[in-house]
Amino acid sequence: MTNANIVWQETIITQGDRAAQKTQSPCVVWFTGLSGAGKSTLANALEAALFERGKHSYLLDGDNLRHGLNQDLGFSEADRTENIRRVGEVAKLFVDAGLIVLAAFISPFQTDRASIKDLIGEYKMVEVYLDTPLSVCESRDTKGLYRKARAGELKGFTGIDSPYEAPESADIVINTGAVSVVDSVAIILAYLDRHSFT
Amino acid sequence: MTNANIVWQETIITQGDRAAQKTQSPCVVWFTGLSGAGKSTLANALEAALFERGKHSYLLDGDNLRHGLNQDLGFSEADRTENIRRVGEVAKLFVDAGLIVLAAFISPFQTDRASIKDLIGEYKMVEVYLDTPLSVCESRDTKGLYRKARAGELKGFTGIDSPYEAPESADIVINTGAVSVVDSVAIILAYLDRHSFT
Repeated sequence: MTNANIVWQETIITQGDRAAQKTQSPCVVWFTGLSGAGKSTLANALEAALFERGKHSYLLDGDNLRHGLNQDLGFSEADRTENIRRVGEVAKLFVDAGLIVLAAFISPFQTDRASIKDLIGEYKMVEVYLDTPLSVCESRDTKGLYRKARAGELKGFTGIDSPYEAPESADIVINTGAVSVVDSVAIILAYLDRHSFT
Repeated sequence: MTNANIVWQETIITQGDRAAQKTQSPCVVWFTGLSGAGKSTLANALEAALFERGKHSYLLDGDNLRHGLNQDLGFSEADRTENIRRVGEVAKLFVDAGLIVLAAFISPFQTDRASIKDLIGEYKMVEVYLDTPLSVCESRDTKGLYRKARAGELKGFTGIDSPYEAPESADIVINTGAVSVVDSVAIILAYLDRHSFT
């Protein structure tokens, strides 16, 4: 038995049916940026705003997926890539389900983000780059991880001893050190409105 | 960096919010049975019936997941278990998103099905066992796989040279060799109604 024997099963109810039922155009809003840049905070605030408008969404959070689907993966470069590959596949399933997907992942490597964009394919991935200075993220240190990384207790921490490759053509760029959560959500909603996703 | 440093992120919009928005009680309807027993057919027909009622669902199909999320897995016992583990984790995410999940997987091993039930946990997994005789499944042979397995071209094929462990306490048991698709859907819908999932 190999995957060559696996035939794609078409479904009766299609992605178009599911999206129409929810009166929305599904997409993936992908938040990338350093730890502490505010990815989860913004994704949550955006989801609350979408929910108020009656939109159907789901938030995929890097930390939460590592407790479940990706619990078998560590932080080597290969594992990080596999982590992001699975996230992309799951995001695609949720868009196929007709939902607006909010994804909050450090996703430091350009090639990994490009792979996900390819994978999402016919649907739209809106890339939101939280361009918040390392010094601001480190001063927040909500999870205490920068302190551990500086003390050498954490190896391979993005921004400290592992690189973060900034997006060169993100759809939206926000420095959360200078822009409030409320204003950031307004910026993203305006973008989604302008592109007919909401 | 290890998973010990990963903190669970609570979301503002909860599973209860998402389910209430869709006016439904999310659950996983899990179809298990031999290849050719009619899992995909029934899952699709059930989804169409739920859609007509305005319910929000998503169908996870074993073959389709093997084209995406699980494309790195083969058919060894370890890979089959990992396949089902990931499916369980993804099903849990979809239930968390407030959807009724229809899952169509041969899922031949009792321990794997029990693991998924544990994983889904607080939500309900409705186990539908398609108890269709091997002879009927083999005579259908819609994918031509039984012929290949009998010819020795496919190894480890469930029902031929790999075991299928029948559920001992499935919620619903249907022999699709004797019950039509329409009647099968009616049986499952009646169960879901009786248990307030629809």
